[in-house]
Amino acid sequence: ELQLNLEQIEKGGYEHFMLKEIHEQPNAVIDTYRGRMLVNEGIIRMAGVDDHIEKFLNANRIIIVACGTSWHAGLVAEYIFEDLARIPVEVEYASEFRYRNPIITDKDIVIAISQSGETADTRAAIQLAKEKGAFVFGVCNVVGSTISRESDAGAYTHAGPEIGVASTKAFTTQITVLTLMALKLGKANGNVSASDYHMHLQELALIPEKIKASLTSDAHIQAISDIYKDSANFLYLGRGFNFPVALEGALKLKEISYIHAEGYPAAEMKHGPIALIDEQMPVVVIATKRGHYEKVVSNIQEIKSRSGKIIAIVNEGDVHVKELADHVIEVPDTLELLSPLLTTIPLQLLSYHIAVMRDCNVDQPRNLAKSVTVE
Amino acid sequence: ELQLNLEQIEKGGYEHFMLKEIHEQPNAVIDTYRGRMLVNEGIIRMAGVDDHIEKFLNANRIIIVACGTSWHAGLVAEYIFEDLARIPVEVEYASEFRYRNPIITDKDIVIAISQSGETADTRAAIQLAKEKGAFVFGVCNVVGSTISRESDAGAYTHAGPEIGVASTKAFTTQITVLTLMALKLGKANGNVSASDYHMHLQELALIPEKIKASLTSDAHIQAISDIYKDSANFLYLGRGFNFPVALEGALKLKEISYIHAEGYPAAEMKHGPIALIDEQMPVVVIATKRGHYEKVVSNIQEIKSRSGKIIAIVNEGDVHVKELADHVIEVPDTLELLSPLLTTIPLQLLSYHIAVMRDCNVDQPRNLAKSVTVE
Repeated sequence: ELQLNLEQIEKGGYEHFMLKEIHEQPNAVIDTYRGRMLVNEGIIRMAGVDDHIEKFLNANRIIIVACGTSWHAGLVAEYIFEDLARIPVEVEYASEFRYRNPIITDKDIVIAISQSGETADTRAAIQLAKEKGAFVFGVCNVVGSTISRESDAGAYTHAGPEIGVASTKAFTTQITVLTLMALKLGKANGNVSASDYHMHLQELALIPEKIKASLTSDAHIQAISDIYKDSANFLYLGRGFNFPVALEGALKLKEISYIHAEGYPAAEMKHGPIALIDEQMPVVVIATKRGHYEKVVSNIQEIKSRSGKIIAIVNEGDVHVKELADHVIEVPDTLELLSPLLTTIPLQLLSYHIAVMRDCNVDQPRNLAKSVTVE
Repeated sequence: ELQLNLEQIEKGGYEHFMLKEIHEQPNAVIDTYRGRMLVNEGIIRMAGVDDHIEKFLNANRIIIVACGTSWHAGLVAEYIFEDLARIPVEVEYASEFRYRNPIITDKDIVIAISQSGETADTRAAIQLAKEKGAFVFGVCNVVGSTISRESDAGAYTHAGPEIGVASTKAFTTQITVLTLMALKLGKANGNVSASDYHMHLQELALIPEKIKASLTSDAHIQAISDIYKDSANFLYLGRGFNFPVALEGALKLKEISYIHAEGYPAAEMKHGPIALIDEQMPVVVIATKRGHYEKVVSNIQEIKSRSGKIIAIVNEGDVHVKELADHVIEVPDTLELLSPLLTTIPLQLLSYHIAVMRDCNVDQPRNLAKSVTVE
């Protein structure tokens, strides 16, 4: 009895840990950049990067190893690092990396991303990287965890404890940390101008308020969830920075509602998956206005002409997609590069509400463990 | 009437072009290496590589751009190039590559893979790569196609005309060409020893006969197809060289049977997709003995303990997986690196038979075009 009460208190009035953690994201992002990002001074302070800045500036390649949701954060980071810092990035499944003979040298930096810091495949991947002489940088949430100890340097996400098995605030804070790193390195190696740098800092500082605004769609998303809760399948589409968000949105739905959802880069649709589209298939499309908007609009038209149902994530004030889509969910505008921090919010809520309506065990989905400490 | 008759003749006695093309693969592979691979002399002759050998040997990175099935061939090639030639390879969706600002220099080689040589996104990607000074190498099937003309050099797959919209022999011949390239480069840069080189050539020369042997499972695969033809979902799992084969197997089923099938690297299962597993879910697992066999066996056990149905692709004489799986389909043993050329065969046949049993238009699936010449 006592435990139940404690759990209730820990849930802070929310029905599930996952919902609580979704709503904690504005503060989790603030906690993650607090003390690191000094907007007015134009400074990003990260000891793990500062202490090894030459390593980073002379890196041949950055190789990101991770699993699951952290792997999706890695894909977002690939786009952000290449855009801001112009360092080639390769993202690998830790489980694949560890069992092949990867090309890696002492000029490479390996970034290992793991919420728990205990993920077995990721641990094995960094051991292999260290043997080959690479510099290993850990991005973990749990302080003192194995990966954080075994890395040469690192930066914590300060998301606070994440109890729900389906990762939410860990994902957005991982992206926050990695964005700070990319910005810092881009400024240091001259690829980001002073004015762009300041603009990015200012926009990043606005993200927590914009996540809050995105959370206000909750009731609207609940209503949409009610319509599609019995769907057997979902597709999720995005382009550019939001392609990995589509993968992550699909993974959330899989994990907690047991609906077979799959993410795709939008333009790959016509190379196969579009054959799946009929009136039974809901398609979640990320169609924010800075992300190849007109290309995504044309993808939406293709889906509508095959009777698919469209749930679109759009920017506030969108007109075009609203006319075409069956449902739209609005998020505030921001820099294209930062948009994953906002577009991911409605996808978390959508998976949450659908899972609740299907009577699934949201916080402890079947077959899944919070941190995968075995192979 | 006449046209129908002509078409019948062109199908060479097969019910569909796709089935004919699946069965043409032993000869298509021979046609692809004929004149290039001289096993006894220990020579691989490819003018497109020979004429630019310094470019290849001094390359910083190889970036492969492609869409759909060709993108899967690119993923297989990534593993093969990195293993044999020790050159870092990055594989990109052409549609994503063209719209970001990719990091690419005149020290990079871009390999564009496209059966038709007309794929719009891939064309745009090579234009961008050329503007940035990269050397572009085309791997196309259609002689004289746009991409073959616009590349700096290239190598044709000599698969012959592919009529079925779902690509089959183009895939295996793309892998053949890319394997020849990787072997040639690995020998030239000293990463493949003389004895390993000869062993690979000899094994490659045996592949056509082994594809023929794989095709003899047709009736057995038809029987399995009959059991699962009404399944709403499928998962496909593989590791290492066979991870992309899992993606390709799933794509085939999607394209022609409209069943939602998804491929995954086997070890990622536990980071989410395993939540989908119940007695309704058939899981196709590639479990050849050289490919992290015992790891895959443990994945199979996890799926069985959650009541999933296992269709396993195994080597002739397999004992372990046979005990665990609901069905096994045998392929001959070969080098791990060459196994995709065999494991892909039963997956093509499985998708074919399921699609026929579902009365789908196998050669011209709904919503799909053979070559995607628009964005």
